[in-house]
Amino acid sequence: MPPPPPTPSDTANPAHPDRTDTAHLLVACPDQPGIIAAVSGLLRARGINIIQSDQYSTDPEGGSFYLRMVLHVRDVAARIEGLRGQFAAEVAEPLGMEFWLRDASAPKRVAVMVSRYDHCLLDLLWRWRRGELNIDVGCVVSNWTDLEGEVDRFGVPYHHIPVTREAKAEAEAAQLERIGGGQYDLIVLARYMQVLSADFLAGAGCPIINIHHSFLPAFAGAGPYERAKARGVKLIGATAHYATQDLDEGPIIEQDVTRVSHRETQAELIRLGADVERTVLQRAVGWHCEDRVIVHGHTTVVF
Amino acid sequence: MPPPPPTPSDTANPAHPDRTDTAHLLVACPDQPGIIAAVSGLLRARGINIIQSDQYSTDPEGGSFYLRMVLHVRDVAARIEGLRGQFAAEVAEPLGMEFWLRDASAPKRVAVMVSRYDHCLLDLLWRWRRGELNIDVGCVVSNWTDLEGEVDRFGVPYHHIPVTREAKAEAEAAQLERIGGGQYDLIVLARYMQVLSADFLAGAGCPIINIHHSFLPAFAGAGPYERAKARGVKLIGATAHYATQDLDEGPIIEQDVTRVSHRETQAELIRLGADVERTVLQRAVGWHCEDRVIVHGHTTVVF
Amino acid sequence: MPPPPPTPSDTANPAHPDRTDTAHLLVACPDQPGIIAAVSGLLRARGINIIQSDQYSTDPEGGSFYLRMVLHVRDVAARIEGLRGQFAAEVAEPLGMEFWLRDASAPKRVAVMVSRYDHCLLDLLWRWRRGELNIDVGCVVSNWTDLEGEVDRFGVPYHHIPVTREAKAEAEAAQLERIGGGQYDLIVLARYMQVLSADFLAGAGCPIINIHHSFLPAFAGAGPYERAKARGVKLIGATAHYATQDLDEGPIIEQDVTRVSHRETQAELIRLGADVERTVLQRAVGWHCEDRVIVHGHTTVVF
Amino acid sequence: MPPPPPTPSDTANPAHPDRTDTAHLLVACPDQPGIIAAVSGLLRARGINIIQSDQYSTDPEGGSFYLRMVLHVRDVAARIEGLRGQFAAEVAEPLGMEFWLRDASAPKRVAVMVSRYDHCLLDLLWRWRRGELNIDVGCVVSNWTDLEGEVDRFGVPYHHIPVTREAKAEAEAAQLERIGGGQYDLIVLARYMQVLSADFLAGAGCPIINIHHSFLPAFAGAGPYERAKARGVKLIGATAHYATQDLDEGPIIEQDVTRVSHRETQAELIRLGADVERTVLQRAVGWHCEDRVIVHGHTTVVF
Repeated sequence: MPPPPPTPSDTANPAHPDRTDTAHLLVACPDQPGIIAAVSGLLRARGINIIQSDQYSTDPEGGSFYLRMVLHVRDVAARIEGLRGQFAAEVAEPLGMEFWLRDASAPKRVAVMVSRYDHCLLDLLWRWRRGELNIDVGCVVSNWTDLEGEVDRFGVPYHHIPVTREAKAEAEAAQLERIGGGQYDLIVLARYMQVLSADFLAGAGCPIINIHHSFLPAFAGAGPYERAKARGVKLIGATAHYATQDLDEGPIIEQDVTRVSHRETQAELIRLGADVERTVLQRAVGWHCEDRVIVHGHTTVVF
Repeated sequence: MPPPPPTPSDTANPAHPDRTDTAHLLVACPDQPGIIAAVSGLLRARGINIIQSDQYSTDPEGGSFYLRMVLHVRDVAARIEGLRGQFAAEVAEPLGMEFWLRDASAPKRVAVMVSRYDHCLLDLLWRWRRGELNIDVGCVVSNWTDLEGEVDRFGVPYHHIPVTREAKAEAEAAQLERIGGGQYDLIVLARYMQVLSADFLAGAGCPIINIHHSFLPAFAGAGPYERAKARGVKLIGATAHYATQDLDEGPIIEQDVTRVSHRETQAELIRLGADVERTVLQRAVGWHCEDRVIVHGHTTVVF
Repeated sequence: MPPPPPTPSDTANPAHPDRTDTAHLLVACPDQPGIIAAVSGLLRARGINIIQSDQYSTDPEGGSFYLRMVLHVRDVAARIEGLRGQFAAEVAEPLGMEFWLRDASAPKRVAVMVSRYDHCLLDLLWRWRRGELNIDVGCVVSNWTDLEGEVDRFGVPYHHIPVTREAKAEAEAAQLERIGGGQYDLIVLARYMQVLSADFLAGAGCPIINIHHSFLPAFAGAGPYERAKARGVKLIGATAHYATQDLDEGPIIEQDVTRVSHRETQAELIRLGADVERTVLQRAVGWHCEDRVIVHGHTTVVF
Repeated sequence: MPPPPPTPSDTANPAHPDRTDTAHLLVACPDQPGIIAAVSGLLRARGINIIQSDQYSTDPEGGSFYLRMVLHVRDVAARIEGLRGQFAAEVAEPLGMEFWLRDASAPKRVAVMVSRYDHCLLDLLWRWRRGELNIDVGCVVSNWTDLEGEVDRFGVPYHHIPVTREAKAEAEAAQLERIGGGQYDLIVLARYMQVLSADFLAGAGCPIINIHHSFLPAFAGAGPYERAKARGVKLIGATAHYATQDLDEGPIIEQDVTRVSHRETQAELIRLGADVERTVLQRAVGWHCEDRVIVHGHTTVVF
């Protein structure tokens, strides 16, 4: 996929950190003594510097241990495969680890699904163009044609696949042909207003991040702003989470809220909420694509 | 009830607005043309100045209209009864209004119910002593003895009334004897950990404000911090609402949240949440006692 | 100026309140008894309903009084001129008022000045297209060509007027020809990186709103993010204010902040700050264009 | 100093993490390869588990490296001295490190200086009693007598040392006799309204944390709320920082803000600000006493 044309503001505003010669290491294993010594010993022996490190243990005795490191690896592209094998043999297997070791300079391949609202989609595309997100948006899939012109503008293919109640399975099959089976590293539901079937989730071949327009678990399901207005809450919110078979029940990556009062109409809640939605979604996508998020059961660890 | 001994910091920090010669007017009626002209005409004719005014209409055509005014009324104590009669006859009846006209210099008589946690109770008592809240705390009722020493310190009677599952009705009767039947203008449940019966609510003779330790409607009922930890939410909150027969379903006065992550244990959620609880509760009590809150169906208008 | 092509999301997301048959009344005068009675009496006599009303007095005795009303006026376009005359003669003159009475359905004519950063400009244009802001963007003036393509896309003329140190006066004259002398109701400086001369301010013929990329009065002047990083602040912010001859000293309309730590590089402060800047600027522009802002000396009253 | 009497709410609300057999390791050194391997190797060899680890480098090439680890060390009190020597010889010296290794179960000895406002002081004492802060408050020093009764209540000695313009040096000498020369690990200025001399700072023998009632660098110096009101800011804040010879210029540990509008009088700014002050101060004290704060030049690293 060709990168979008660089705009001058990219040069003027290089917000992204330098990812040359950089790798991300994620580790999950039972907590036990000696993990850091083993990991850092292997890295030290290969002249790899630890630039950043975060760790978390649910319980030092018998709990789960999670680790994220940012590593400085010269010639990372050439060496990463070999390094993976060495890490597996020398550290991961002896300590019972799951691990992911990734070349950080390679942007995540992302497909976006959207219906008619433009705010989340535009914000993602715009941040991508600015270089804020370490992603490469490969295509947009929509059940409407409304946003085609906007997406064209960013040089991204737009696949219009209508979804009807009767032919939903066929529509999902067509969607999976475009974006399923691991063609992408991440699918983002940027206010995609259709429930996805278990088959779709299974066929996607990658994580799916959804933005829900409420502060979960409050107002799960349909019509959250309408119900927020009826309940008279004083804050409204949005939640980005991994999509799972249980609607609005997936592991939460990020949430935020904004203050409202009796004065705001439902239409104004929708408008104010849209700003929270786009903010929360881009944070979640950004963190995921920087390999900062690890799923721990029903929840997430965000480093 | 004797006021608490003034501390020197009162003089150094006079946070409360001047309430001498001040009245609060609250109005609720069907929206219709001419409300403000009628109200302000009557006030003007009596030389009463409008210091502040807030209004809200759910819908200019066929909706509900709410109004709050702060009035400058010389000799308010002497005149308020007469003024009430004139307002009823000349404005409220013709326009189908409910209204409340109160001498703002008279603090609200408040009773507090509490169990074992001290944070909400102490914060209220401190703010009262500092002159931040226009209240007079008449007594504290508790099903435990833990906080008696703290309450003594503020010169406030502490009534220990144990509550057991078997003798709950008797306990509530004893509670109502102390604080029911309109002896108080407001009852505050400052982390009172017992569900109150419909009989108690009916017998209280005044509004009751409860603090719930979650962001309602999320985690209504028992164990909200435990459930928040299990669900992996990224913000925890608290909600102050009027107590009604439907547990945690009463009209919400105020809510707030604070950010958490995977790192916080349940005990740390409890600690962080305590700060939100006491903040939210004192705002709700403060606003109620400044006559800023009007119940509109299942929700509140907070001016 | 032709309105931008309506997108389907406008229909799906009608965030703006209904402004048909609506007028905004703003009043500033010495506080005195009888203001509300006089204003509402005149309106009542003409069958005009008060939909919303906010007032503020710096001091009931000898202070300044400010009032904003939203009025329901049938045939507002036809009647507003006559109403203005009646209000002036019957209310404003006797009470020594300044006042503004405006047809709320008429969007404010806005010109935007910008340099090379796109975030504030694009956010305004997006919100305008969505119908969130009661404005009509007439043109964009820039000392660079970078953003011309983006602006074209919204059907808005883009005037490239280079500014050099030597020929600044000539550049400002050219700018004023395009947007000065009251051709517009508001000029927005959406990260326009040149200091405007007193002559420009005088010649603009309308208010000018600037966004400064710090929490004023902290870090006024150049390089605020660099200085924020050096000082080690834990929050960074942005400030929208009316431009005056004293750089970064004009009346503040809105401010907000976001949390940072030692981890964020200066480039990351710039990226995080950009989100605060565009949020703060669009709030200020939105409030100004809803006639919610009154300048009071060196400060603002925002209703 | 005897610990305060445990209240029942302590048992009901054990907010503090378990600090038995726990040590805190802080490291500052030039960034270089092999730091983590060296540190974790030494710990591993002694059977010490790393419970938590945070690191930060200002620049992987030629920058400063900072590290904080929470360690599980059986018999920490008996072993810590020996461990310190081994760490110094085997790791710190070869790598050019400054380091601090502390028994985390030992609370920091804290002295508080205060004038007349009670909010910051009471909040600290109350949190200490709840077990939220890993401190032991040894005494309170004040230039006024106002808060003596409150402090007595917590079983803490109160030293009244008047300060006059003429005899300031004598007063400071008397203060230092009580709390200087390293008798304490930390001195907290909980709204102590006197400027401390360079001699006092030098004689204290420990870090000093001050709370300033503004969002620094805005409104440094006297009268911040008055100046905030005059400038018409839309947020007010508070800043906790280490006291240095340059008034209000010390390294910032924490800041926060709260929203205000034109409506709040200066007295109300003071009241709202007080809540921000006490929150910000207790966070800074809590983090300092958990060994989370490292001074880096003019700024802080807060892990």
